[in-house]
Amino acid sequence: MRPTGLLHLGNYLGALQNWVELQDDYDCIYCAVDIHALTTVESQADTNQIQSNIEDMILDWLAAGIDPERSIVFVQSQVPEVMTLHTLLSMVTPLGWLTRVPTFKEKVRQMDETEETVNYGLVGYPVLQTADIILYKADTVPVGRDQVPHIELSREIARRFNNFFGDTFPEPQAKLTESPLLVGLDGQAKMSKSLDNHLDLAATPEDTSKRVLTAFTDPQRTTRNIPGRPEVCNVYSMHQMFSSSTAVSAVYSECTTAARGCVDCKRQLAGSINDFLEPMRDRRKEYESRPGYVREILDEGGKRARAIAAKTIEEVYEKMGLARG
Amino acid sequence: MRPTGLLHLGNYLGALQNWVELQDDYDCIYCAVDIHALTTVESQADTNQIQSNIEDMILDWLAAGIDPERSIVFVQSQVPEVMTLHTLLSMVTPLGWLTRVPTFKEKVRQMDETEETVNYGLVGYPVLQTADIILYKADTVPVGRDQVPHIELSREIARRFNNFFGDTFPEPQAKLTESPLLVGLDGQAKMSKSLDNHLDLAATPEDTSKRVLTAFTDPQRTTRNIPGRPEVCNVYSMHQMFSSSTAVSAVYSECTTAARGCVDCKRQLAGSINDFLEPMRDRRKEYESRPGYVREILDEGGKRARAIAAKTIEEVYEKMGLARG
Ligand code: SF4
Ligand code: SF4
Repeated sequence: MRPTGLLHLGNYLGALQNWVELQDDYDCIYCAVDIHALTTVESQADTNQIQSNIEDMILDWLAAGIDPERSIVFVQSQVPEVMTLHTLLSMVTPLGWLTRVPTFKEKVRQMDETEETVNYGLVGYPVLQTADIILYKADTVPVGRDQVPHIELSREIARRFNNFFGDTFPEPQAKLTESPLLVGLDGQAKMSKSLDNHLDLAATPEDTSKRVLTAFTDPQRTTRNIPGRPEVCNVYSMHQMFSSSTAVSAVYSECTTAARGCVDCKRQLAGSINDFLEPMRDRRKEYESRPGYVREILDEGGKRARAIAAKTIEEVYEKMGLARG
Repeated sequence: MRPTGLLHLGNYLGALQNWVELQDDYDCIYCAVDIHALTTVESQADTNQIQSNIEDMILDWLAAGIDPERSIVFVQSQVPEVMTLHTLLSMVTPLGWLTRVPTFKEKVRQMDETEETVNYGLVGYPVLQTADIILYKADTVPVGRDQVPHIELSREIARRFNNFFGDTFPEPQAKLTESPLLVGLDGQAKMSKSLDNHLDLAATPEDTSKRVLTAFTDPQRTTRNIPGRPEVCNVYSMHQMFSSSTAVSAVYSECTTAARGCVDCKRQLAGSINDFLEPMRDRRKEYESRPGYVREILDEGGKRARAIAAKTIEEVYEKMGLARG
């Protein structure tokens, strides 16, 4: 995950929740990718906050239930071997495979750049991503649907390496995360920090309630005695995610009969969301009560990751005919 | 230097001789670039010989007078930090800077590839080269004229990094090696292994003599009593490089008056070349007499290089906001 700082409910439902569950069935490795973040950085000012953003984000992971005893949790740049592998994989990856990736063309457009002016490193984004995966010989990668072409590319790069230098890497499989789309408080777009329509996982119950009360509802319901239309109201759809089914039925009937007002409805939703977040808040408090604990967890995770990485690089060096130590 | 195996007289005059002299005025770092060699490799069979080629080449360096006490001598892949820096520099290098390099376009043509099918790593060749230089904060790079655009690009990459993240790297300067062009035994083209018109530094005196005797001379001199034209004869031009000026004058007058035959002339040249190579042969014997010595020198050189590299990477991590340890 790119280190964007504090996470919100949309990040939880879209990825974290799934990550937490996967821990029961897999040996998991979760990594904050600070080197990827550099593909769009242009000054030291942009990078000053990266490490504190990472610690905020990792605390969100831990609060969400990522268990550092079971899973390896670390920061990408703690394992420089990923850059060794990135460089070596670049020798087996045709340039055309990279410039053809739709997300590359899209990013170039978004950044208002051309294929001439973007950084060489941005072109190599999928190569670094591949290195992130196969450095640990991962067989399975939990991703959203938009990331499937990248995993397909990772499989091709792994396959090409194996063809050239002998069987070394498993071809990683995408494991699709099916998660409900969480629309933001504006009722307009996917919850996201940049649109400021989000609910931070780390917010206090009071702040969460305050923000929920700002949510847009059915725009036709201009006064309390006009019945509402839950099917166009995002507050209702959030009730469906966070409130009990009894409560959801009550919201529906009371809204459509004007038996409940939107403010009360949102207050109730805030309560459901706060209940949902409570176990995370408890875990967060535990982690926060031990100063330096997150750092310790990362140090330990980094060590475990490096141990795996070092073995892979040794094998790759051997296969590619490079110098030992 | 790319690890091409045994070196020949052309390599000596074109680079090694200069490297040996530079040791008196500079702290020198000499590196066999095995990772660069991977940009054009496609199978394990291609890589099997890399390390033994490297040891042959390093022995040639040492025989030529590279002094491992004064200079750092090692193999590129012994210092994986160069790949760390390659990846990080890729974040500040516009793709267009790389695809515009004339040697890139040339190589793509030579390989009978397109800009789509060549490897991503081949595009990044100058980035890896830059990492090779600035990882050690080198200020001066001895190069031939054809490499000057690459050093210019290295300066631009270093400058861009400094602009983004604060003053970190000196901008390396090209130090032009002015060396006489050594034409091969065929008298047609620059001495090169692929044309098999070369004289190996490691050849025995007997083999050297035998090969010199195969050299082409003035083609119009079909019999001994026709006077020759030293100015079109490569044997004469090699006399100018390896024989005393008295001998050169004698060759000239005796050739132009048909007072000497070409076979004698070549026998004399072989003697001069063997005299020239003798101190190298003596040093080679010394190094060869201690089994494993070359490997020890590389281990030691690799350690010294890594110590410098680790400090640079620590500074780069700090400047780019990456995770420590
Ligand atoms: S009562 Fe609830 S569901 Fe109905 S419009 Fe208001 S906020 Fe939406
Ligand atoms: S005598 Fe010597 S210089 Fe003259 S043509 Fe023969 S080889 Fe060349």
